[in-house]
Amino acid sequence: MSSPWTQARRAARMNPSIIREILKVTEKPGVLSMAGGLPSADTFPVEALKAACDKVLSQNAKEALQYAASEGFAPLRQWVAERVKALGLNVSPDQVLITTGSQQGLDLVGKVLCDAGAPVAVETPTYLGALQAFTPYEPIFTSLASDDQGPLPEAIGKLPHDAPGTRFMYLLPNYQNPTGRVMSLERRQAVMAAARAAGVPIVEDNPYGDLWFDEAPPQALSSLWPEGSIYLGSFSKVLTPGFRLGYIIAPTELYPKLLQAKQAADLHTPGFNQRVVHEVVKSGFLDQHVPKISALYKANRDAMAEALRQHLPEGCEWQSPRGGMFFWIRLPEGFDAMALLPKAVDAGIAFVPGAAFYAQQPDLRTMRLSFVTLTPELIRDGVAILGRVLREALNAPQEPTP
Amino acid sequence: MSSPWTQARRAARMNPSIIREILKVTEKPGVLSMAGGLPSADTFPVEALKAACDKVLSQNAKEALQYAASEGFAPLRQWVAERVKALGLNVSPDQVLITTGSQQGLDLVGKVLCDAGAPVAVETPTYLGALQAFTPYEPIFTSLASDDQGPLPEAIGKLPHDAPGTRFMYLLPNYQNPTGRVMSLERRQAVMAAARAAGVPIVEDNPYGDLWFDEAPPQALSSLWPEGSIYLGSFSKVLTPGFRLGYIIAPTELYPKLLQAKQAADLHTPGFNQRVVHEVVKSGFLDQHVPKISALYKANRDAMAEALRQHLPEGCEWQSPRGGMFFWIRLPEGFDAMALLPKAVDAGIAFVPGAAFYAQQPDLRTMRLSFVTLTPELIRDGVAILGRVLREALNAPQEPTP
Repeated sequence: MSSPWTQARRAARMNPSIIREILKVTEKPGVLSMAGGLPSADTFPVEALKAACDKVLSQNAKEALQYAASEGFAPLRQWVAERVKALGLNVSPDQVLITTGSQQGLDLVGKVLCDAGAPVAVETPTYLGALQAFTPYEPIFTSLASDDQGPLPEAIGKLPHDAPGTRFMYLLPNYQNPTGRVMSLERRQAVMAAARAAGVPIVEDNPYGDLWFDEAPPQALSSLWPEGSIYLGSFSKVLTPGFRLGYIIAPTELYPKLLQAKQAADLHTPGFNQRVVHEVVKSGFLDQHVPKISALYKANRDAMAEALRQHLPEGCEWQSPRGGMFFWIRLPEGFDAMALLPKAVDAGIAFVPGAAFYAQQPDLRTMRLSFVTLTPELIRDGVAILGRVLREALNAPQEPTP
Repeated sequence: MSSPWTQARRAARMNPSIIREILKVTEKPGVLSMAGGLPSADTFPVEALKAACDKVLSQNAKEALQYAASEGFAPLRQWVAERVKALGLNVSPDQVLITTGSQQGLDLVGKVLCDAGAPVAVETPTYLGALQAFTPYEPIFTSLASDDQGPLPEAIGKLPHDAPGTRFMYLLPNYQNPTGRVMSLERRQAVMAAARAAGVPIVEDNPYGDLWFDEAPPQALSSLWPEGSIYLGSFSKVLTPGFRLGYIIAPTELYPKLLQAKQAADLHTPGFNQRVVHEVVKSGFLDQHVPKISALYKANRDAMAEALRQHLPEGCEWQSPRGGMFFWIRLPEGFDAMALLPKAVDAGIAFVPGAAFYAQQPDLRTMRLSFVTLTPELIRDGVAILGRVLREALNAPQEPTP
């Protein structure tokens, strides 16, 4: 008998997650993995969270354990509105919607703004999870020509002609996943002027902005065109991803639709988690805690930068990231990072091939290396192995392309 | 300047949540509310959760606070597979997907199975939150003719003719929200035989099944046609809704698509919450705890049943529910529960008009009363007020319909 299930045409087109397949390849005992996108577990404030769990369950158990408002816990929404002032955002708590991680923010944005066949513009390359979140709503992706600061304003200017009806641009201005790049103030201004002129609003995703090493990144893109911007924030990189807490800041016009989509998606984000995190952050905890994370990551960045200079063969290109979690390497001509991965894993080192992060034509020569889950010593060991693998590949007789 | 935001056609058609508007009307100080769908906060096992939070953060903090598998925490998936054996379900832990409340299960089902314009069949009436979850995926709802046990097998038999291509039927066999009704074993068998014959698979939602008063409900619908069934379970009514924990049990064929949709929606359900709940339930806690909830709710049910007999005017129809949280009342001819609500609230009693729960033609004479958030004494007071409001309306001169 044939299957009784008729999957939606949409679902039938959803391809299995490449990254899951890739990470499976890298999961081998003894392999030094720079493939993950995880923050360092050493940075999780266990004692503060433990005390907060105890306090919430001692003082407000019934409220914390009951169903709660879809908008989120009011004091946390207030805290967020206050916190983002430092980014140049002047918003009311009524514009803040607490989400189950900022990944859910992407899903809700897709649900409210995407139509099958309508364009959505993304950076080249872009965060894979955003492509996965939008894909079920069947947009057509436009990959904006980009350089080491992000999308080119000229490319944005062409959107009304090249991709009329573009619903929004998805932008990651700070220490982007996967490239680690950051937009200068000048680029931000040019990008937002072009967006406004083209009438294409933006969705700004900022999970890494707090993790800067020498100087804070410029003001948020959203501050340059508030009524044309949705801003997504997250507690995953500065506190813990295991609580799944993020937030959307939306123009008043869009908020009710995002709220409806949120209610339909999971009623509300766990109220207990919201109260515990609010308990931890409400009195300035992050001002002490985040600099510690940044200092740790900076030392790792330095170790990786030095090791790359020492071990990578000529012809490899990269920039030292000024924050965040990732190096982005471009290999010499002829290399295919995906084809190289099994050899690298056999040699004891894992990375993510960059091809996974492109909405359109992938650059097969790219790879992403995380510098935050290994110690400086293991980073040096790992990069030395990677260097050997690359040199061997360079010296090997050219394999015929199948 | 006009708005830069073009909402999706889909989103533009999403109507503001009726229930939110209704609940706003009912939120007045001093009003006895039977409108909510909340479990009693007195049933939340605060001490057990507190001890479990402490244990998880003392013994497995780094794992609990880190990103985790989209499938869910393996021991919890195992526990679920074991637990549902009592319902006649023989499944592997690999078929269990942990969700952020069972509301998310509905969203993922919609994402994977609904196509714009394709039919989805629901009971008459049905759970409003399911309609809200499926609506963004733009199905056409078919409202199955139903009686006091749920949908009529004949109505299911007609689906291939009346609604060809029906993606699935959404069914709530145990103490349904809103009607409180339960399907007999005979009805279950007839429904599933009709479903199989029609080639229409089912999505079975079972948040209330554990809350039975005198005898456990018959075996799960899914046990009668496992390969044609998705089963949704929840911890919200037996432990706490504030942790947002539910699960999907899916045929092996569908699991990978639901998993992809899950990953796109929020990466994974909070790992911390999963570990804490597993810590609480792993050694039989629910076997002691759930009977206490049921006993509490049964006493309330008895109080409401008696009060309704005493105070409601002739011509009102209802059945005493054998589990769950709700009475469903049908008022005499000519009544409109929605029109009555403001008067009832002014008099000090709130309910939910039943019209909100219909996918197609609403029955305006219906209302839902929760019996689990007030004490027996307040239930008696509230129903007495409701009786007075109804008698006054019966005796009032007929208002002309506008």
